[in-house]
Amino acid sequence: MAPLADLYQLTMAYGHWRAGRHHIPAAAELFFRRAPFQGGFALVAGVAEGLRSLRAFRFSATGSHLPSLSSIPTDVAYLRSVMPTTTEDAFFDYLATLDTSEVTVSAMPEGSVVFPRVPFLQVKGPLLVVQLLETTLLCLVSYASLVATNAARFRLLAGPDMKLMEMGLRRAQGPDGALSASKYSYIGGFDFTSNILAGKLFGIPVRGTIAHSFIMSFTSLEEVEPRELPPLAGGQPVDLPALAESWLGRVCELLQTPTKKAKRGELAAFVSYAITFPKDFQGLLDTYCVKRSGLPNFCAVALALHQLGYKAIGVRLDSGDLAQQSKEVRKVLRACGAHFQVPWFEKIPIAVSNDISEQSLEEFSREGSEIDVIGVGTNLVTCPLQPSLGCVYKLVEVNGSPCLKLTEDEEKMTIPGTKTIYRLHDADGHPFMDLMALEEEPSPSVGQELVVHVLGQLGEASTVMPTTIERLHQTYFRDGQICEPLPSLLEVRNHAQVSLSQLHHTHRRLYEPQPYPVAVTEKLHCLLAELQAAT
Amino acid sequence: MAPLADLYQLTMAYGHWRAGRHHIPAAAELFFRRAPFQGGFALVAGVAEGLRSLRAFRFSATGSHLPSLSSIPTDVAYLRSVMPTTTEDAFFDYLATLDTSEVTVSAMPEGSVVFPRVPFLQVKGPLLVVQLLETTLLCLVSYASLVATNAARFRLLAGPDMKLMEMGLRRAQGPDGALSASKYSYIGGFDFTSNILAGKLFGIPVRGTIAHSFIMSFTSLEEVEPRELPPLAGGQPVDLPALAESWLGRVCELLQTPTKKAKRGELAAFVSYAITFPKDFQGLLDTYCVKRSGLPNFCAVALALHQLGYKAIGVRLDSGDLAQQSKEVRKVLRACGAHFQVPWFEKIPIAVSNDISEQSLEEFSREGSEIDVIGVGTNLVTCPLQPSLGCVYKLVEVNGSPCLKLTEDEEKMTIPGTKTIYRLHDADGHPFMDLMALEEEPSPSVGQELVVHVLGQLGEASTVMPTTIERLHQTYFRDGQICEPLPSLLEVRNHAQVSLSQLHHTHRRLYEPQPYPVAVTEKLHCLLAELQAAT
Repeated sequence: MAPLADLYQLTMAYGHWRAGRHHIPAAAELFFRRAPFQGGFALVAGVAEGLRSLRAFRFSATGSHLPSLSSIPTDVAYLRSVMPTTTEDAFFDYLATLDTSEVTVSAMPEGSVVFPRVPFLQVKGPLLVVQLLETTLLCLVSYASLVATNAARFRLLAGPDMKLMEMGLRRAQGPDGALSASKYSYIGGFDFTSNILAGKLFGIPVRGTIAHSFIMSFTSLEEVEPRELPPLAGGQPVDLPALAESWLGRVCELLQTPTKKAKRGELAAFVSYAITFPKDFQGLLDTYCVKRSGLPNFCAVALALHQLGYKAIGVRLDSGDLAQQSKEVRKVLRACGAHFQVPWFEKIPIAVSNDISEQSLEEFSREGSEIDVIGVGTNLVTCPLQPSLGCVYKLVEVNGSPCLKLTEDEEKMTIPGTKTIYRLHDADGHPFMDLMALEEEPSPSVGQELVVHVLGQLGEASTVMPTTIERLHQTYFRDGQICEPLPSLLEVRNHAQVSLSQLHHTHRRLYEPQPYPVAVTEKLHCLLAELQAAT
Repeated sequence: MAPLADLYQLTMAYGHWRAGRHHIPAAAELFFRRAPFQGGFALVAGVAEGLRSLRAFRFSATGSHLPSLSSIPTDVAYLRSVMPTTTEDAFFDYLATLDTSEVTVSAMPEGSVVFPRVPFLQVKGPLLVVQLLETTLLCLVSYASLVATNAARFRLLAGPDMKLMEMGLRRAQGPDGALSASKYSYIGGFDFTSNILAGKLFGIPVRGTIAHSFIMSFTSLEEVEPRELPPLAGGQPVDLPALAESWLGRVCELLQTPTKKAKRGELAAFVSYAITFPKDFQGLLDTYCVKRSGLPNFCAVALALHQLGYKAIGVRLDSGDLAQQSKEVRKVLRACGAHFQVPWFEKIPIAVSNDISEQSLEEFSREGSEIDVIGVGTNLVTCPLQPSLGCVYKLVEVNGSPCLKLTEDEEKMTIPGTKTIYRLHDADGHPFMDLMALEEEPSPSVGQELVVHVLGQLGEASTVMPTTIERLHQTYFRDGQICEPLPSLLEVRNHAQVSLSQLHHTHRRLYEPQPYPVAVTEKLHCLLAELQAAT
């Protein structure tokens, strides 16, 4: 696999190489300019994947030994075919030797809350390599951070107790996009994925329910095979279709709905599923009419199972007004539980799906609902409110000199120099400002007044006195190797929730948050002014 | 790699297997219900990838022989760990033997125009396998078709002569999403990609230009190394920095702009690039001020190159009002060309980038522009106007009986039975209706009156008389193998443009198109009515 790069990066690389500038030291930073989804924050994600990709960054120069792959050109041969014909041969020889052994990467730990314009990943190394890594890092970090942030917003809206399930496999940008979606949704606070490959590769808990197509593939109870189920405690197997049908009569009587409106194909599918998974029976209620078919059929099968000692584990609604229906379903479950004296019945978890968005979650809590589990697909993985985070990767220092990209737009200006990033906390433990200092500056001390210039109002100096000061970056990559143990996915997920919980609610709220201040030190501000004056 | 599947599909599969229903014959269809982006059509894409994935569809049961991979569980072992504990062992043995050797797939050729509710892929085979393939096929076809359609819309807006370049690598859902974006944008009508891996793997023409970071890495002409360039025709090498600087004086005089406003770092970068790629010199104009720096510096270097016999190949603008700037740039290029008697100068291609959307293209043509090349990233690959196509995969026949999913919503109703799909053309060669017939029906004949029922107004029969009748599906997969040669990417790209060009402009226009009629035959209509009555 060739490294991820755009062609212009290779032509730039050649430019540097030919000018003998490829080895001069450089530093670049990765950040975004605006928080996604009109919120105030994002979550850092994709760092581990980026580091692994750096470790493997190499242009292949010798062909595969496998005969099936021998027709694929090496990276170097391919580049030779597309670079301008004037490109010297020696450059391709050089490319074949290129690796990341002189690269150092520091980053904020994966799962951390990050704010606009704060670099969350810094790369140092030879100019040519630093520039070549741009696309690899952007490609692996941008979507990861975007979807983790999106997931975190769903979690904030849903509250801590709701179970959230990612089910976007079929809506992502192919298999790999779907795997990223599963992984980074989990980091952002989802509980489960439907994607078994994501479960297998990343250890994310997987869940699945019954499908419409399974229900539609049955037309009558005669198709149920096998038909018998032994009671949980053992003993004589029972004819479940017959038992369920008799329960259907009692349920329909209680609910005052005609038994003939309860579709027998659906009942057959439920019975078949119950015989197959007696300890994991769940019902999808809306293949036909929820009220007259799905719900009576489910209750009939669940009560039949109960008679044999088993408990149903849930129902799912996949269309219509989900909040309203969840309340009606809960009412029926309560009524059945009371009437037939099955106390656990009223607590059967109600899951919903069907194009769930942030807005849906707001509606659920506004209208009140009896929903326990929410499955989110499209609106989680494609991030329709903002499908790209717009991360950028900018050179900040070349050959010891800080770089500045000045534009008409102050927001688009880069902050020059290699930096240390601090997060300042107040006495309540809330972070109240991120501060960028030049690397050479001494660390600020707790209890000391700091003079800072807040981005967006650089002209005015102000003073702050943090109670605790957190250094945000860790060095993760050195000498071509990952030099710091990377946390597990679960650790990252926990770190994200802690990082979010520390945030003051005015910064955390999803709409019209109060902008979180990001500042530079007096010294960095002077450098900025000096460079601006020089241009 | 485990097959792409959601867990519920495996539990359903177990349900079928345990009921002995896994081998009963079934058929499913893949389609979408609404055309994306508020348009009237989509392009079929992802079929070839779907077929290849079907060929490889297998659950691994024996571990890898490579020691480095031996700790990864097999698919079957993993599934055993997540399926309900009551799942019988024999099912996992069965899974290990599963393949697609009994599956048949037909589809519309990749690149074809397709309309809402018309199945563009049909799968037949044993019930269990047909259901298991759902996610794989949806995952590979949905995004592919979406992004190809998005690309086609950009092409329609840009007109046939504009060069379109895909540059979304860093904005996609990871590397694989980016590769899909490159491939299917090309199919939809783009000319180039910036992604070298996509170029290498798929043979898509790659292009690249100079970057801001390259320009920013220079501060003065002294850094240019090497400094000399021989004339194209041979002879004494010339000091290009000195020559460019002398040209800069003449250009600034002509343009009446102070030479000191032209940044020397930028000039150095241009000179260095020109020495490196004398036959492929291009300038990125907006790192600093376009008018006072980027453009004079570019003209100076291009004129210096011209003096040595070389031609510059383009300029690029990456910020600001692109249409307006393109006109100003063209004016300057014309003025320089006339004044310095360099006729080709006025024709230098102007490329633009920076968050280009459909709206940008409309503005360009409304305001008039001098743009020749457009680079599109985020708005192409993330499809922000609609980030998911919403394809569905529905059972239409089980064990010889047609299936119907009836819902409150007529649009969501499935059309039962296995079908043949025809496209009816009028005397002008425009397709005017897609017609679904039951597979068992005889083919309709040209010049014969056909009784049809149009979806959305099923109650009314109408008659049509097509001039030509096209059968839309081909059988691509049989006995576990791809049985029809798949077209090359370029062939697919050409087919897409032909397919689009045949479409009447009322159906092709991007906004408020006239809905394209999709109909069923009298016989299929009767079946539908019969099944509806029976429920």
